[in-house]
Amino acid sequence: MDARHYALLPDPFPMWRGGALHGARIAYETWGTLNAARDNALLLFTGLSPPAHAAVSPRDPSPGWWEGMVGPGLAIDSERFFVVCVNSLGSCFGSTGPASPDPATGRPYRLSFPDLSVEDIARAGFETVRSLGITRLDTVMGPSLGGMVVLAYAALFPGAARRLLCISGTAAAAPFAIALRSIQRECITSDPAWAGGNYSSEHPPATGQRLARKLGTVTYRSAAEWQLRFGRQPIRDDMRHGDAFASEFAVQGYLETLAQRFVSAFDANCYLYISRSMDRFDLAVHGDPVAVFRRAELERALVIGVQSDLLFSLSEQGAVAQSLEAAGVATRFAPLSCIEGHDAFLVDLETFGREIRTFLES
Amino acid sequence: MDARHYALLPDPFPMWRGGALHGARIAYETWGTLNAARDNALLLFTGLSPPAHAAVSPRDPSPGWWEGMVGPGLAIDSERFFVVCVNSLGSCFGSTGPASPDPATGRPYRLSFPDLSVEDIARAGFETVRSLGITRLDTVMGPSLGGMVVLAYAALFPGAARRLLCISGTAAAAPFAIALRSIQRECITSDPAWAGGNYSSEHPPATGQRLARKLGTVTYRSAAEWQLRFGRQPIRDDMRHGDAFASEFAVQGYLETLAQRFVSAFDANCYLYISRSMDRFDLAVHGDPVAVFRRAELERALVIGVQSDLLFSLSEQGAVAQSLEAAGVATRFAPLSCIEGHDAFLVDLETFGREIRTFLES
Repeated sequence: MDARHYALLPDPFPMWRGGALHGARIAYETWGTLNAARDNALLLFTGLSPPAHAAVSPRDPSPGWWEGMVGPGLAIDSERFFVVCVNSLGSCFGSTGPASPDPATGRPYRLSFPDLSVEDIARAGFETVRSLGITRLDTVMGPSLGGMVVLAYAALFPGAARRLLCISGTAAAAPFAIALRSIQRECITSDPAWAGGNYSSEHPPATGQRLARKLGTVTYRSAAEWQLRFGRQPIRDDMRHGDAFASEFAVQGYLETLAQRFVSAFDANCYLYISRSMDRFDLAVHGDPVAVFRRAELERALVIGVQSDLLFSLSEQGAVAQSLEAAGVATRFAPLSCIEGHDAFLVDLETFGREIRTFLES
Repeated sequence: MDARHYALLPDPFPMWRGGALHGARIAYETWGTLNAARDNALLLFTGLSPPAHAAVSPRDPSPGWWEGMVGPGLAIDSERFFVVCVNSLGSCFGSTGPASPDPATGRPYRLSFPDLSVEDIARAGFETVRSLGITRLDTVMGPSLGGMVVLAYAALFPGAARRLLCISGTAAAAPFAIALRSIQRECITSDPAWAGGNYSSEHPPATGQRLARKLGTVTYRSAAEWQLRFGRQPIRDDMRHGDAFASEFAVQGYLETLAQRFVSAFDANCYLYISRSMDRFDLAVHGDPVAVFRRAELERALVIGVQSDLLFSLSEQGAVAQSLEAAGVATRFAPLSCIEGHDAFLVDLETFGREIRTFLES
């Protein structure tokens, strides 16, 4: 049960910071139908790690990463929009990335994959919808990393989208987020099993990946939410181990469960490339943000941020909204008071759904 | 140049969660003079990692960890108080801990050191001042871990202090802080060089310790402060390395510098023991906090917290203050708006000094 389609990228596909890919492809899924005018397309970029499978579809009934948000009659309404969700360039769920075979050698790129930028992820999404005959999107949107990608999209492809929806993103990675992501990368590169990127898929740097994911999980949530959810509850008996300094609290068991799931799902080198691309992102390299947004020919924008977000602070989303507004784009800034932190868009579907629906119906 | 004194702890020294130490000692430093009535003593506990050297003194003119706060005419005024700062039990700056020789074997305790609790750190401080002939402190105070220790002190030793000053502490470790500390510990225990605790002092688990310290440093500060301090400034040229995924931003260089300093200064097993003791601390095991504080016979209390503290949230300090108030202790709660996060007490000496001075002079 696999609902993925594949778009072949132009060959060569030039990378933003140099180098080029050959024979590269993007995995994507769609919901709804492209209308005759080809003007009802909504392109959805993901956060750092999800696949293109945002929600159930007839071809893949398994729940997606944004289940309840995308589908018939839902906030991102597939009865109205032709929704396209792409697996990011550089990822490992069907799109070309460091774990993919290099056509020049037949062996995985690993660290010979060229430098990856948020701009490349944006361009790969652009080429994907272009391959479907779409020249102007109704809406380009994305949360987290996706919230950076949509800004790069607007900068690189003037006129390519009518509306922009940026969720918990930023116009430039902040030093606090850079610090946290670089520690996560160092957890992986410090694991002897990483082997300079040359691990086999049977022996990934699991310890480093587990640590990186645990730290990621902490930074995606908030202290207030975990106080309510876990308090000082002890760990489940079946998760106790006799090791020195073994986990004692429920919150530690939760981190471990998520971490183990991640190791088996995500390639370590892909993680390193995408994580670093986020640190490097700075919309200002494309010019003054107001000028960038003026050139982009956007009609409307919605910028959503969350008070409790540690990683992408509300002030960063506020700055994006201000630049859009100053560029003459009709912009709504929605600072939400959810307590779930950066991940609130995945958890508080009701609050986010209301904002997104109102915007998309406008 | 060493200003440390040593207090021998009672032999055996029973540990809160079982086991006992033999021939254990506490390193401490003092400022000022104990008066004839022996009622002007102020006992200062530290955070997780500092030594007893809080400030310069004639015997040790090197700057201390709270330089500018402790000394003649300063907020903690050594012309008025006999200030005693202890290196925590379990630490490695002269006090007995996992890196100290076990008198039974002559070799370092390492993981055979008994379970360490915040209560043990409190008791070791209590015994230290008792060895100086002090039966009732004017003030017991401490920041961070020290802010937990002073609560344990009040719970264990009714009548042993007239005033209590708790800075950026908590009555019970929160799940968010537990999560972050447990990831730090796992960075160390995952480092092959840790070797189940049996590393030699020449080959410590430096990689794990560096990662743990970097993460610690992030959690001790705030996103807003780092935005001001570092922004997206690139790393200094002399800190650039050619490695894959090498540091690119100034904030990463800052983390690396602090991390390297820490590895050479602090023992990994001591870190693990003290860090875990913080997770386990819960004042409620001593009874209802209001009842605990009523029994403690405190006259006055000052509780300070910082809005931007990720690790010990303001609401936790508010709860401590409320319990003290409800127990009939004249309490001031000072929620500060410093942007330096948990470490603000080390940085914003002016704001903290004003609060502390006003309280101590009252």
